Amino acid sequence: MPSINKSVWRRRKLEFWDRLWEDLEIGYLDEDLLPVLIYFYTDKEIHTLSSCSGRIILADSTFPWSREESSVVYKKHSPIDVSEILGIIKKPSVRRLWLNVTGPIIHVSTTNIDTADKILAIARNAGMKHSGILSISENKGIILELTTGVKLTHLLRSRDELVTDIAKLDKLVEIANQVLYEGKRILCRLFVDLRENMPFTPDETIIDDLRRRGLTPENLSPPSYCRELL
Amino acid sequence: MPSINKSVWRRRKLEFWDRLWEDLEIGYLDEDLLPVLIYFYTDKEIHTLSSCSGRIILADSTFPWSREESSVVYKKHSPIDVSEILGIIKKPSVRRLWLNVTGPIIHVSTTNIDTADKILAIARNAGMKHSGILSISENKGIILELTTGVKLTHLLRSRDELVTDIAKLDKLVEIANQVLYEGKRILCRLFVDLRENMPFTPDETIIDDLRRRGLTPENLSPPSYCRELL
Repeated sequence: MPSINKSVWRRRKLEFWDRLWEDLEIGYLDEDLLPVLIYFYTDKEIHTLSSCSGRIILADSTFPWSREESSVVYKKHSPIDVSEILGIIKKPSVRRLWLNVTGPIIHVSTTNIDTADKILAIARNAGMKHSGILSISENKGIILELTTGVKLTHLLRSRDELVTDIAKLDKLVEIANQVLYEGKRILCRLFVDLRENMPFTPDETIIDDLRRRGLTPENLSPPSYCRELL
Repeated sequence: MPSINKSVWRRRKLEFWDRLWEDLEIGYLDEDLLPVLIYFYTDKEIHTLSSCSGRIILADSTFPWSREESSVVYKKHSPIDVSEILGIIKKPSVRRLWLNVTGPIIHVSTTNIDTADKILAIARNAGMKHSGILSISENKGIILELTTGVKLTHLLRSRDELVTDIAKLDKLVEIANQVLYEGKRILCRLFVDLRENMPFTPDETIIDDLRRRGLTPENLSPPSYCRELL
């Protein structure tokens, strides 16, 4: 196992911390994810990377997982309404048109296997059952992906042919919103588990910076959709 | 990181090896997966656990990922035909009826991080992009899940309401079979990569046992569906 270069890793952590607040300012970061990410940063041996709180998309692509030759024609991190997507669905697609719903995905970096193990235990306990270590490298540390089995990949149309009955779209949208909600529910459980368990070792630099922003690890608000869920 | 108990791990490996051949005899093991699994066993520091070559199922469940209160009403590891599933789809379901297609999933155990890293590199190179380390324990070793993004979870019906147009079922089945095939294609690439790279350290006990069964690491046949793919 490569040994982690702590000073390079530390520099990266502080860069990611600054970027988090920039992303928040420009609206690039899903605001509901912020408190969960902050909890990770309050630990000296942890930072986060690209993350998503869960979303509903319409994708024009050959397969739901296609990246190349794929275009996202609609995207939302909150429940959708039939009227929002009906126009898109009625039009012919270039490839196939998919309704994809995904649960939360959080990428985390840590400096040691013990912390990785603890994070994985918390994530699995919250319902992120498909979490694991993706890679271990000297400069980037131990990279974890925290993820759920919450997923919908439904075929709406194949080019000029509708596969899903448009008269039943309300039912499908209702279920897609439920799938999104199942993912958010897991994120709320993660918030609660992190609030109880974090930090393992406090990162005073981060906690000081939080205070300057008017926040403390003790007074972070849960994501908005958790109020009805917790 | 817990240190692996090599003698316990070794005993477990030999038990899993015996079980592999028992499972094959009783038809419990997907035969097409066998050569891939054998390659892993020929390395002294690796064994496999529960695995699947990819499959198409019809599930009666609230969500595609539900385990409890879920029943698999149809399952096949090879392409399906509309006529095989039409009868099921026409009948009301207890919960919701899903058409789920999954790519290959292979669970592997190894005794050290270096081997884990090498396996992950081979798996990702073959297209198993969502592979990672699930856990590390003294007796079970480092457990990896090798898995793909190949997945379809399509809503067919919600109790007594059909959501998918039954007149378009042939199109959906065609695409479901393509999804299955995409998974098998990745499994073939994995077979080829393992053939080139395995074993890192030969396991003479396993290789001797293979010879007694009339097989050698050099003469393993690729999975049947690879002949048209390779």
